Amino acid sequence: MTSTDRIRAAIRDVPDFPKPGIIFKDITPVLGDGALFRATTDLFVEQLAGLGVTRVAGIDARGFIFAGAVADRLGIGFIPIRKKGKLPSKTHRASYQLEYGESTLELHEDAVHPGEKVALIDDVLATGGTAAAAIKLLQDCQAQVLSVQFFIELGFLQGRQNLPPVPISSIVIY
Amino acid sequence: MTSTDRIRAAIRDVPDFPKPGIIFKDITPVLGDGALFRATTDLFVEQLAGLGVTRVAGIDARGFIFAGAVADRLGIGFIPIRKKGKLPSKTHRASYQLEYGESTLELHEDAVHPGEKVALIDDVLATGGTAAAAIKLLQDCQAQVLSVQFFIELGFLQGRQNLPPVPISSIVIY
Repeated sequence: MTSTDRIRAAIRDVPDFPKPGIIFKDITPVLGDGALFRATTDLFVEQLAGLGVTRVAGIDARGFIFAGAVADRLGIGFIPIRKKGKLPSKTHRASYQLEYGESTLELHEDAVHPGEKVALIDDVLATGGTAAAAIKLLQDCQAQVLSVQFFIELGFLQGRQNLPPVPISSIVIY
Repeated sequence: MTSTDRIRAAIRDVPDFPKPGIIFKDITPVLGDGALFRATTDLFVEQLAGLGVTRVAGIDARGFIFAGAVADRLGIGFIPIRKKGKLPSKTHRASYQLEYGESTLELHEDAVHPGEKVALIDDVLATGGTAAAAIKLLQDCQAQVLSVQFFIELGFLQGRQNLPPVPISSIVIY
């Protein structure tokens, strides 16, 4: 088995979460296994080889788990993209639609230098609303978004169609 | 300057956040600097030397940034302790008081093996309510909590008094 196969096999289906009829892909068994968590970090890091990325942005909250490890591996800075009201200094804001209502992400205006090469990491690509907002925020800071990576991609939701033309990759695609 | 001095010097005071009269300690300049973020991970990892810890738990959301990096460094599993309603499988729950109202943390019941040696990491120790709830959750899973570490400790709030007798350390204490 490849490490991707081992990672995929460890993801747990939890039926009827967060509501009846939904099968939730639970990544906590991957996170909780030291070898699989490291293998996941390896795969994220491999995608960034040669890009000259100088910061890794993670999306609140599960994106932080992966992006923190990747930033530490590469010895580059970590940038938090957070839910509304969490970042204390001046921010850019981007809202996106949820099934019911909307949500807002924020990024400190001074988090990235203009022209800086940035990678973005999140746990799941579903419809793409969250990632599209996060990419917009980085671009509002005039960052070059050279890589957008997800741990899981729910391919049947076609979220990539809602993202701008940036390089996208996912470790496990359903 | 020691690395702790450099880390402390990079923390930014943001006045009147989240409300008038509060000076918020903004850690994003530390996270965003690759050398300082790595130095921070180094300091967390050093505290765990020789303890035989087999999992690192992080508290939602900023605890995830540090705990993810530490788990990856040590090649051990990462355990998310999350805000209510986020974890899909069966959980233990612990509530704690906030200034107005209360909040609840959750931990998957199967996240830790009974007797397992666990470290807990969070960004800030203030009054200790969050950390006390997280420690209780780990102990509900019969984990041995061998280390509780914070990036920042607001010593004047005397949060340690609200924590059970577990080894506690903080990188920057105010």
